[in-house]
Amino acid sequence: MDSAVIEEIKGIAGEENCTTKTADLYVYGFDASVHHENPDIVVMPKTTEQVSKIVKVANRHKIPILARGAGTGLCGHAVPLKKGIVLDMCKMNNIKEVQVEDLYCVVEPGVIYAKLNKELAKKNFFFPPTPGSGDVCTIGGMVAVNASGMRAIKYGATRDYVLGLEVVLPNGEIMETGTRTLKNSSGYQLDRLFVGSEGTLGVITKINLRVAPLPKARALALVAFDDLVKAGQCVSNLIAHPLIPSAIEIIDNVCIKAVNNAMKVGFPDVEAMLLVEVDGHPNVVEEEIKLVSEICEKSGAVNVEFSTDKDTMAKWIAGRKAVLPSLSRYGEKFVSVSLADDMAVPMSQIPKAVKAFQEIAKKNNVIVGTYGHAADGNLHTKMLLDPKSKKYWENGEKAVKGIFDAVLELGGTVTGEHGVAISKAPYMQTERSSALATMKAIKSALDPNNIMNPGKMMDWEGSIISNLRYEVEKE
Amino acid sequence: MDSAVIEEIKGIAGEENCTTKTADLYVYGFDASVHHENPDIVVMPKTTEQVSKIVKVANRHKIPILARGAGTGLCGHAVPLKKGIVLDMCKMNNIKEVQVEDLYCVVEPGVIYAKLNKELAKKNFFFPPTPGSGDVCTIGGMVAVNASGMRAIKYGATRDYVLGLEVVLPNGEIMETGTRTLKNSSGYQLDRLFVGSEGTLGVITKINLRVAPLPKARALALVAFDDLVKAGQCVSNLIAHPLIPSAIEIIDNVCIKAVNNAMKVGFPDVEAMLLVEVDGHPNVVEEEIKLVSEICEKSGAVNVEFSTDKDTMAKWIAGRKAVLPSLSRYGEKFVSVSLADDMAVPMSQIPKAVKAFQEIAKKNNVIVGTYGHAADGNLHTKMLLDPKSKKYWENGEKAVKGIFDAVLELGGTVTGEHGVAISKAPYMQTERSSALATMKAIKSALDPNNIMNPGKMMDWEGSIISNLRYEVEKE
Repeated sequence: MDSAVIEEIKGIAGEENCTTKTADLYVYGFDASVHHENPDIVVMPKTTEQVSKIVKVANRHKIPILARGAGTGLCGHAVPLKKGIVLDMCKMNNIKEVQVEDLYCVVEPGVIYAKLNKELAKKNFFFPPTPGSGDVCTIGGMVAVNASGMRAIKYGATRDYVLGLEVVLPNGEIMETGTRTLKNSSGYQLDRLFVGSEGTLGVITKINLRVAPLPKARALALVAFDDLVKAGQCVSNLIAHPLIPSAIEIIDNVCIKAVNNAMKVGFPDVEAMLLVEVDGHPNVVEEEIKLVSEICEKSGAVNVEFSTDKDTMAKWIAGRKAVLPSLSRYGEKFVSVSLADDMAVPMSQIPKAVKAFQEIAKKNNVIVGTYGHAADGNLHTKMLLDPKSKKYWENGEKAVKGIFDAVLELGGTVTGEHGVAISKAPYMQTERSSALATMKAIKSALDPNNIMNPGKMMDWEGSIISNLRYEVEKE
Repeated sequence: MDSAVIEEIKGIAGEENCTTKTADLYVYGFDASVHHENPDIVVMPKTTEQVSKIVKVANRHKIPILARGAGTGLCGHAVPLKKGIVLDMCKMNNIKEVQVEDLYCVVEPGVIYAKLNKELAKKNFFFPPTPGSGDVCTIGGMVAVNASGMRAIKYGATRDYVLGLEVVLPNGEIMETGTRTLKNSSGYQLDRLFVGSEGTLGVITKINLRVAPLPKARALALVAFDDLVKAGQCVSNLIAHPLIPSAIEIIDNVCIKAVNNAMKVGFPDVEAMLLVEVDGHPNVVEEEIKLVSEICEKSGAVNVEFSTDKDTMAKWIAGRKAVLPSLSRYGEKFVSVSLADDMAVPMSQIPKAVKAFQEIAKKNNVIVGTYGHAADGNLHTKMLLDPKSKKYWENGEKAVKGIFDAVLELGGTVTGEHGVAISKAPYMQTERSSALATMKAIKSALDPNNIMNPGKMMDWEGSIISNLRYEVEKE
């Protein structure tokens, strides 16, 4: 990147908010995916006006630009594939308004999810989507990928809570879209288009979010099964009852073992377990505890243990959240990688899906751990492999293709909540083949110089196991 | 329109599904708005393939094309302003799938809202948005304008229920977007962009909708006030408690009088009344009845009457629904017209909003009836005027501007659920001034020949009291 341009950017944001140090650029080349690429400069803007000016510079010089939150994305969203400018939004982290009586709040994109909910909790409200990385991830990142989490069945995803956005467009203009009201039909719902657009259409600088009252009571069941497919069938039976729990998490034996090895949560060493959460009015919770127990037992559970004790529930949830990091300690040489990590299927198809994943793992000689938000059909898998071995990656890629083919066959989607970026790009392109031309037309219309997070989603070409963060041995 | 083109269209859809009779074209020139214009041909397609072929013809010849549902829109969506082809979607009215165990259904756009809910009710489910015209309006129309209704505070708007769409694009290609799963982050959320795009980006031919379990109990309160502002304040007090009712309807004295004159519903002849609905688990409903009564009394209600009797509740709701037609019987020469009919403000601003509306009516010498979905800040007004008098229309237009200015000042939107089309176009353009360029860029990218419902929303120029359905006397 031209040094005059770097100076121009430093002039806008202040030298103290920019870095071009090799070590910093290396670090900002990562997110939580398997991919890596260094940017040319990292900027921490403090205001929308600064973002606007920097984007204008980028657009004038046709320099790639990418806004990142906490870098918890699992598919490469925050990896600056075409180098250029990374905007770290962490300093735009103010909660601007909390208007619980009007059921909304206004935040900057760098606000941490958990911090927002801590503020809202003071008034007995919350922002319901519950991403696994909620303790560290930012609201801006959640909007960029339409994040959700385990409570989507009852509370929906981020897209359902975005009432309005302020966005710096690729030409540097500042756009406001949406409202502070619960409903609006005033022109195109551009805010809903920007949700999930993964930084390819603009930089989000302010977010109006709907908020909801905190439920008064909550209970959590740990349900053990001697068969993964039976656990999947139980999820289906619960919802078909009908019963809308606030969450159902599924965890297979690979994941249970990994968590039990890594921490003292004491999950039963069974083939599969469910964590079933119900919330709401205390009387209703009490009634639903009985109902869940009955349905689980009828569905062949070997044990059902309910708790309303805060510490026990927190321990179990911590165990569930520990699946992802724990899997990397599964075997000495192995790491857990996110490839086919975020499929969603109609809930009734869960038994077929988990069975298919097991068969695909066996066939391709890889270890696959299955867990996820079963209540909304969102299954995560992690592949355990030796990252130095080309053979493992190739087997992994074959397994990924098998898993995505199976998911689309079952009427599902390749990503329920993590997004596309690099790791899922070719499979999203298959899933959305009839919509790609429209996506590209919108992208070209809004970003003719293709500066916003280029080379991903519709634009990605090639294998998902390129641009790897690991040094893979040559054969 | 060229007779060869008309023959080509008849060849695609079948002569029996097309009409060019003068009387038919005149009738299809109306919707429920104040506007009118005849189309050149009306077609009732039966399949997506027919729609695709007809759109291809329209695009080749650059002929305007407009898909309509039941024509219940209040802003001119279904009025073919630039003539051309009207597609009446009433024959594409099949419910294709009802998968309550997966919480979704798939419908064609011509399915009537009430018919869908009758089918879903057999399985104890429903599609929650509750438009006032629900007995006759179509799901396709609801998607086109992001319709909602009185239950949006608890259940959201149509945009929150659309999981996927099949759309015939302006070039005639058939696009599928979205999923049958509860969540997805797989590429741009194009389905959410098409919601509320009012037929300007394509013809919706299939809709995947999330469904919800029917609440087990429901109760309705009729709450009387001697002051409209007090009633508005009470809404605010209820929500700030916090309490999320399933609906709160507000009705002012102009509307109460109109309904009492038109039918024997026996609403109290007070300055304002609220209908407060709570639903859910029977125990919770019981508790919330007490809570609502307490808060209403504290807020200065002169009477609170709760009912759980089905017939009484149905009578009150019918009275509320009768506001719109009843207002046209207010005075001999007067009709009720929809101009500034659908504002939404943050709920805490309702008292200020209703006060402003009263002052604006007085100042401009027009009669304004105020009612609407107060729980989500969505206020309807109807203007009563002599439609033959130019003076009345001019006063009306001044009042409209005053009302919209007040609403935007209060942080609101010019339309909560009815959409823009013609009647709200200039005011939407004010509200969304920083987003207009982006809307236009998307429109041009997808519909370069501007054939889809042209001349409305971003494209409208001029006064909203042109293209009137009434013969206005010259001065």
